Amino acid sequence: MITLLHHAFCPHSRYIRLALGEYGLECELMEERVWERDEEFLALNPAGTTPVMMLDGEPPIPGADVIAEYLDETHGLERTSRRLMPATATERAEVRRLVSWFNDKFYNEVSGPLVTERVYKRFMSAEQGGGAPSTDVMRAARANLRYHLAYIGWLARTRNFLAGDRLTYADLAAAAHLSAIDYLGDVPWNEDEAAKAWYVRIKSRPSFRPLLNEWLAGLPAPAHYIDLDF
Amino acid sequence: MITLLHHAFCPHSRYIRLALGEYGLECELMEERVWERDEEFLALNPAGTTPVMMLDGEPPIPGADVIAEYLDETHGLERTSRRLMPATATERAEVRRLVSWFNDKFYNEVSGPLVTERVYKRFMSAEQGGGAPSTDVMRAARANLRYHLAYIGWLARTRNFLAGDRLTYADLAAAAHLSAIDYLGDVPWNEDEAAKAWYVRIKSRPSFRPLLNEWLAGLPAPAHYIDLDF
Repeated sequence: MITLLHHAFCPHSRYIRLALGEYGLECELMEERVWERDEEFLALNPAGTTPVMMLDGEPPIPGADVIAEYLDETHGLERTSRRLMPATATERAEVRRLVSWFNDKFYNEVSGPLVTERVYKRFMSAEQGGGAPSTDVMRAARANLRYHLAYIGWLARTRNFLAGDRLTYADLAAAAHLSAIDYLGDVPWNEDEAAKAWYVRIKSRPSFRPLLNEWLAGLPAPAHYIDLDF
Repeated sequence: MITLLHHAFCPHSRYIRLALGEYGLECELMEERVWERDEEFLALNPAGTTPVMMLDGEPPIPGADVIAEYLDETHGLERTSRRLMPATATERAEVRRLVSWFNDKFYNEVSGPLVTERVYKRFMSAEQGGGAPSTDVMRAARANLRYHLAYIGWLARTRNFLAGDRLTYADLAAAAHLSAIDYLGDVPWNEDEAAKAWYVRIKSRPSFRPLLNEWLAGLPAPAHYIDLDF
């Protein structure tokens, strides 16, 4: 039994949900609002971040990168052709480079600010940092997104999947972060056809469906969000 | 032949130098000043960060976490008792959790701001963000350091090494970040005896010696920096 402490719009949580889905592992989702700094949650992950994966009889496994490596070691290796990591150390280094690109750099520059301003702040009290979204922060994040989208497009034109021939964690991480801000209508898809075509392929996978069913009261997704061929 | 593009006071570069030292791998060091945004360097690592590891006939391997996993796969596995990762997936998850704690959280809250303000800014032009260090930023980082030091002390009192019985990447990452700011005299060692005793053990390892020989013109280290029994 796997339980994932997550938030529906946390890009790192979405990444792990995609990975679990690709490996055919069911999990029970429990929403965690990290800004509430719940003490029981902090005991599971002192860093105070989502996702955290809970397995029967095991200590909590916190953090998207830690969970992904754990899943690779405990489920990926045996799946050979459907493993989300390539076969050689050099190719795995490229996957990890890109996963870090999205989970760290893209998150800091784009998806973190946009999700915080437009989603999390709705749920935060004033003391927790809630309130109206900062237009300055959103403008900067949207400007950063344009060069990131061009980079994804460049990768998608050069390779079959972002890190090489096969689907890997790199595709899932990138698509997870994009999906969270695509719900907000923030991705200028018309700026890069190759990036869009790659995203449509990832979005069409069955593992993606649960993400497309998430919705936020009072903030409907744009029409193309759930459209698999937008 | 290994070449490491690094900076002497970049904590992530220090972490990889320790790992290479523990594995007995010699490397040639080439200083990289990331704030100059050199185009040749950005072609090796578009994220623009140090360290980057170069191996003959291989693509560049950028980023401390990516390099550490690569070294584990290519050199650690065969070393069994001296491997810097434990044997089980659950134990490795704990190592990776702590490595991320230091490479991401400690860096963002403590070592990054202190090294940037006190070291990098000396070399930056005004356009690159150089100038006098910000006392506000330094004060906040030093305040954060105190709770991090208490956490290290708690780990050191609970376990033989930070992640368990044996020396792992977690100890090297923690010690690397601490060493960079210890040069600056910023660590209040007298606040936590257990943290200090653990650090003295790591600092006494031969892999640490090259770090203790680094120095910065115009900014001498405090006397205890090179003292193995301070």
